[in-house]
Amino acid sequence: MARGTASPEIEQLIQLLARLPGLGPRSARRAALDLVKKKEQLLQPLATALATARDTIVTCEACGNIDTVSPCTICRDETRDRTLICVVEEVGDLWALERAGVLQGLYHVLGGTLSPLDGIGPEDLTIGKLVERARDPKVVEILLALNATVEGQSTAHFISDQLADCGVAIYRLAHGVPVGGELDYLDDGTLAAAVKAKKMV
Amino acid sequence: MARGTASPEIEQLIQLLARLPGLGPRSARRAALDLVKKKEQLLQPLATALATARDTIVTCEACGNIDTVSPCTICRDETRDRTLICVVEEVGDLWALERAGVLQGLYHVLGGTLSPLDGIGPEDLTIGKLVERARDPKVVEILLALNATVEGQSTAHFISDQLADCGVAIYRLAHGVPVGGELDYLDDGTLAAAVKAKKMV
Repeated sequence: MARGTASPEIEQLIQLLARLPGLGPRSARRAALDLVKKKEQLLQPLATALATARDTIVTCEACGNIDTVSPCTICRDETRDRTLICVVEEVGDLWALERAGVLQGLYHVLGGTLSPLDGIGPEDLTIGKLVERARDPKVVEILLALNATVEGQSTAHFISDQLADCGVAIYRLAHGVPVGGELDYLDDGTLAAAVKAKKMV
Repeated sequence: MARGTASPEIEQLIQLLARLPGLGPRSARRAALDLVKKKEQLLQPLATALATARDTIVTCEACGNIDTVSPCTICRDETRDRTLICVVEEVGDLWALERAGVLQGLYHVLGGTLSPLDGIGPEDLTIGKLVERARDPKVVEILLALNATVEGQSTAHFISDQLADCGVAIYRLAHGVPVGGELDYLDDGTLAAAVKAKKMV
């Protein structure tokens, strides 16, 4: 052990943990110590869960969701409304919508947003595949559920151009005051959108 | 897949990741997605590193440090000053002192602090072993490097009572203004300690 460092095995573990989103170098050290301390209850099950995930998780060839089967369980579900495709940036967004339980349709995971500065163009996302799916006469509606960020909105704009001649209705999510949100903490853009889209009570 | 949940393999991974310190349920989901997305670069190496840690890391029988050998590399290091034992709460504190490179002696990891409310008494820490080590005539000085918290300080107090008849000099870390610290942001106790222990320039 060099002065000031742990053994190479632990250093390796710390460095990998530090690459997880949400963990910095300091919290990765704490996590590694905690793992070694709880060998039976945490380290061993996590090693097994990672090995299982590595061996079983695949990306759905139809929608880009992750699951142990492809097409994924959502795409296979015959009770789902096959006339609606909801487009999301990442699998995490799909999960959020599924947790809310507000959509009965299918999904399409783009795998990110257009970002010319980072060299991410339309061919790096699954936009071509989406256009192909939208051409299926069964599909009636496409809901663009992208983040309300500059990148999300410019990607949504690009996609609606691409879908223009597919004969589908294209929607986006409504803007407004988040449920439980306090007006005093909202940005001007959200307030303006909420006033513009006011509803009669 | 039940509505609103990922596949059981991913849910299992998320739940284990959420038990790491510093990761909540939401960041554990993000971490799991990131792992699955970066199978070759992150998931696979992390699974291997965890398996290696599980198989190779042991607790040093002498000082309580973690390493791949026992006694640990620090305890085996013949260049270390064997007259000084620095007592710390956790392995993370040992690492912090080693990173600072300020101690040439050996360490003793307590494994926590006394906490009667949580049912943690002296027999749950390595205090008995410390007293045993302190009785070694080679040991001259014990430095209690415990956290400056109520638990840390009451544990330090208890330990110095236990060590009273071991014939060793017992020290604690100095209190004062942290290097780079701004007075305006320090608590009254630290300021009082810094004034009381003022040094001539």
